[in-house]
Amino acid sequence: MNAPTFHLDPRLAADTLDIGDLQLSRVLLMNDARFPWLVLVPRRAGLVEFLQLDRADCVALDAELRLCSLALMELHRPDKLNVAALGNVVRQFHVHVIARFETDAAWPRPVWGDTPAPSYAAAEAVARVKDLRAALRLV
Amino acid sequence: MNAPTFHLDPRLAADTLDIGDLQLSRVLLMNDARFPWLVLVPRRAGLVEFLQLDRADCVALDAELRLCSLALMELHRPDKLNVAALGNVVRQFHVHVIARFETDAAWPRPVWGDTPAPSYAAAEAVARVKDLRAALRLV
Repeated sequence: MNAPTFHLDPRLAADTLDIGDLQLSRVLLMNDARFPWLVLVPRRAGLVEFLQLDRADCVALDAELRLCSLALMELHRPDKLNVAALGNVVRQFHVHVIARFETDAAWPRPVWGDTPAPSYAAAEAVARVKDLRAALRLV
Repeated sequence: MNAPTFHLDPRLAADTLDIGDLQLSRVLLMNDARFPWLVLVPRRAGLVEFLQLDRADCVALDAELRLCSLALMELHRPDKLNVAALGNVVRQFHVHVIARFETDAAWPRPVWGDTPAPSYAAAEAVARVKDLRAALRLV
């Protein structure tokens, strides 16, 4: 029997811009101009909890979280990183990596569940995706 | 020169009940009767970001997150786990592992920054700590 196929949750797809695929995870940029905010989605069908990752995927995810954290650090020099796997709304397992600033719109609160997100303007979206692809060596 | 000594952040100490020490992390129970909520604090002085963990500590932390997640699953059978390292308020690196229910006080929002936490009653606190110590093989 073939392994079930990974499909990105439609809500994650609608809320984000595609950056590209690392070895394990699809990397997405949240379309929220207030925060430099990546979402990593391991391309494993049916994954909901961190607990379900096997050892090899767990090691790969750690490496990819590190790479994405470094990319955000390098590009934005934030005051703090927030790393979180919640999944109360979208059950498909995904991890947020968010660059936070003491001057940002939600500080010191978490970014979720705030007012509706202002999307990126077209030119800014293109520039952000390009910079992130370069920082993640996806070019 | 001696390695700097780990001291638990006083705010984390004030908000939690001590469960015990795993190989790397101190395990705390958030004193919030609304949510079964653990906090893991790797006992490394000066640690702020996930990025600063060396490879061995990263592997150890993954294993301890797994152990704590399994303990909450076993004791509470939640609908979802939330795992997060934020640190906007308390900079000492710490990871939240929270058992969430579709019927809980904050669902589907995150648990942070809500109304003040109602503490556990004494007998419930004692029972929770005992059950968690047993589930984490700390007895």
